[in-house]
Amino acid sequence: MISEENHKRGLKLLKEMGRENTLFEQEETSDDMYRLSVGYLFGEIWSRPNLTLRERQIVTLAANIALARPSGTHSHYRSAKKVGLSHEEICEIMIQVGAYAGWPTMAHANRQYREVLAEDKANATKGKKKAAAKRTAKKKT
Amino acid sequence: MISEENHKRGLKLLKEMGRENTLFEQEETSDDMYRLSVGYLFGEIWSRPNLTLRERQIVTLAANIALARPSGTHSHYRSAKKVGLSHEEICEIMIQVGAYAGWPTMAHANRQYREVLAEDKANATKGKKKAAAKRTAKKKT
Amino acid sequence: MISEENHKRGLKLLKEMGRENTLFEQEETSDDMYRLSVGYLFGEIWSRPNLTLRERQIVTLAANIALARPSGTHSHYRSAKKVGLSHEEICEIMIQVGAYAGWPTMAHANRQYREVLAEDKANATKGKKKAAAKRTAKKKT
Amino acid sequence: MISEENHKRGLKLLKEMGRENTLFEQEETSDDMYRLSVGYLFGEIWSRPNLTLRERQIVTLAANIALARPSGTHSHYRSAKKVGLSHEEICEIMIQVGAYAGWPTMAHANRQYREVLAEDKANATKGKKKAAAKRTAKKKT
Amino acid sequence: MISEENHKRGLKLLKEMGRENTLFEQEETSDDMYRLSVGYLFGEIWSRPNLTLRERQIVTLAANIALARPSGTHSHYRSAKKVGLSHEEICEIMIQVGAYAGWPTMAHANRQYREVLAEDKANATKGKKKAAAKRTAKKKT
Amino acid sequence: MISEENHKRGLKLLKEMGRENTLFEQEETSDDMYRLSVGYLFGEIWSRPNLTLRERQIVTLAANIALARPSGTHSHYRSAKKVGLSHEEICEIMIQVGAYAGWPTMAHANRQYREVLAEDKANATKGKKKAAAKRTAKKKT
Repeated sequence: MISEENHKRGLKLLKEMGRENTLFEQEETSDDMYRLSVGYLFGEIWSRPNLTLRERQIVTLAANIALARPSGTHSHYRSAKKVGLSHEEICEIMIQVGAYAGWPTMAHANRQYREVLAEDKANATKGKKKAAAKRTAKKKT
Repeated sequence: MISEENHKRGLKLLKEMGRENTLFEQEETSDDMYRLSVGYLFGEIWSRPNLTLRERQIVTLAANIALARPSGTHSHYRSAKKVGLSHEEICEIMIQVGAYAGWPTMAHANRQYREVLAEDKANATKGKKKAAAKRTAKKKT
Repeated sequence: MISEENHKRGLKLLKEMGRENTLFEQEETSDDMYRLSVGYLFGEIWSRPNLTLRERQIVTLAANIALARPSGTHSHYRSAKKVGLSHEEICEIMIQVGAYAGWPTMAHANRQYREVLAEDKANATKGKKKAAAKRTAKKKT
Repeated sequence: MISEENHKRGLKLLKEMGRENTLFEQEETSDDMYRLSVGYLFGEIWSRPNLTLRERQIVTLAANIALARPSGTHSHYRSAKKVGLSHEEICEIMIQVGAYAGWPTMAHANRQYREVLAEDKANATKGKKKAAAKRTAKKKT
Repeated sequence: MISEENHKRGLKLLKEMGRENTLFEQEETSDDMYRLSVGYLFGEIWSRPNLTLRERQIVTLAANIALARPSGTHSHYRSAKKVGLSHEEICEIMIQVGAYAGWPTMAHANRQYREVLAEDKANATKGKKKAAAKRTAKKKT
Repeated sequence: MISEENHKRGLKLLKEMGRENTLFEQEETSDDMYRLSVGYLFGEIWSRPNLTLRERQIVTLAANIALARPSGTHSHYRSAKKVGLSHEEICEIMIQVGAYAGWPTMAHANRQYREVLAEDKANATKGKKKAAAKRTAKKKT
């Protein structure tokens, strides 16, 4: 059983990494699955010493890009930026992994990364429109 | 065709990483294969900017551990130490990748890492014996 | 050449597993591909002894979840339920495989499973509406 | 640095293979990524001797189908046809790889191939409509 | 941190599965790696409900055979027999996974399984010889 | 059940490819496994039309090299030569697959290929020594 301490540590780290809005799909399907992800993956493994958070994020991106899975990497481009990786560094990880895992893993990573960028841009636009609407509404009153 | 410039840059980097005694098997099988490895993989990709050599080595270890191939990672434990990664950092990469690529990839990485440690220890012992033999021989004369 | 006997055995098993509406995409592309799937994969392999149908479905789900492919697993969540696996058992297979193939394989399996659940729910709603419409139509007459 | 010579050779080959409209996503994300793909992957590797272009395309399709990645193979069904592979030969590669990489890799390849066929058909229809509209417009004048 | 409770539960289960002599390589390299394996993989995941131990072993074998890694599966053929799987059932899992992960995964599993059988046979012979030697020694006294 | 016709066709093709001394390990473990390999993999799939034997061997080598498994490819370097592939062509397949599946898959393929070459050379030497011994023995009589 995942302890409350591990669960809290996991939630705290998820927030620090800007990942607090992930894992809901797991929570809906199975509470156990969700608690293992929060309390073990983040509350235990990601909370370990010996690597900086930035390095741990690099390791995770590299492993995930190498495995070229259909899902599970998108959110890591976001947290990568949150913990300080630049656009150039993220692209460079793709290029380096591409040499070791094959050209299409670089190309696939690029596609998933672009989906994230496009989604973030769309959300930012929505956010601006909402803020503008709010300002307009305020003026009217 | 791999340019002489790239070839030289590759050889220089291989030496800097303590990898100058690798790739001979490729040279024996096919000169093209060897020159692509030296001049493109090391002379081009590994020589790129945007990541430090240490970070690039972390990326490479993470990708290779994730893919759990039978060969091709051993030499990277050696160069990892050469470019400054500690035993604890190497183990930590295995643990983190294990979470994303599966427990047996951590265990497999550990086995390959231990083969490297055992080989290095054996070579060191041989080296010491040779040095001792030399000293003894010297005394006798 | 796949024998008629194998083809029939395959079709019968596909029906028993609630999979009779799969494989049409293969039939449209290539008759040979379709006949190999029906007559060999289902008519030969799935029809073998030594494991119960339930166990064979567990083996198949586990292998597919481990490989985290973009397609080819969805239909197995349906047949899994048809041959008697519960929601809890299906989630448990994901959790166990996740430990051996990596966290994202569990998360990816969950996503594909949820797509199946959502599709089934949508179809059930459509079915109910149709049935209700029929009842209403009947009353009117 | 990828030489201008390699870049030009790559672009020329891409055109010969009917792939001149690919790689734009890479160009938008990172100029380096794009230049490595054009100048190294196509200008160096694909431009090598020892295999015919048709055989090299067979090798590439086989490797990509075996790895069953979510993206990166679609464009190869198009270039395969451009360099002379027939529908039957493409299906046969899927069937043979399926035996060595697993049934779902064949089924997944078939799905991606069908997406290409559907897109090409849609484009052809659009093309015909445009042409017809042009002819109608011409008549009217 | 892995709790003492989890560590003890893990050790107990490892013994029940006849796996108490595994994981030593991990203990020698890194105490953390070892404690995560005992306390998390066995003390948490393998100790979960919803599947029988036999079914959980089937899931694990299937996932591992599908991934065809160089190491990490051998010990599972032993625990499979300990928890009640027969030779025929083990072979059948290989055959079924082979269809979904490719022929060579079945062949590779067979090779690793045979290495286990050969090692067990050699140990049994040694055991018999030791026992016979003991009996002879006893007689002599 | 694999038909006698398929079994014979498989055995005949295995001989044609110089593979008649493979698959014994499967026969010893499980007769079913062996008969599926002979009668289905070789008697059905490899016996299909649409690709030449040489092309089918190229497809198989490419898929196997891409997947970088610990075993199952060695024998294909032998049959590749039997069906007419040259050393240069085999190396070229490795180089091309390496670009799509990652540098270490090329390097790993090279290692397995070299094991085959070394074994064949050793056997040839033994064969020559035996022949020489025979000649010497003959002279003496």
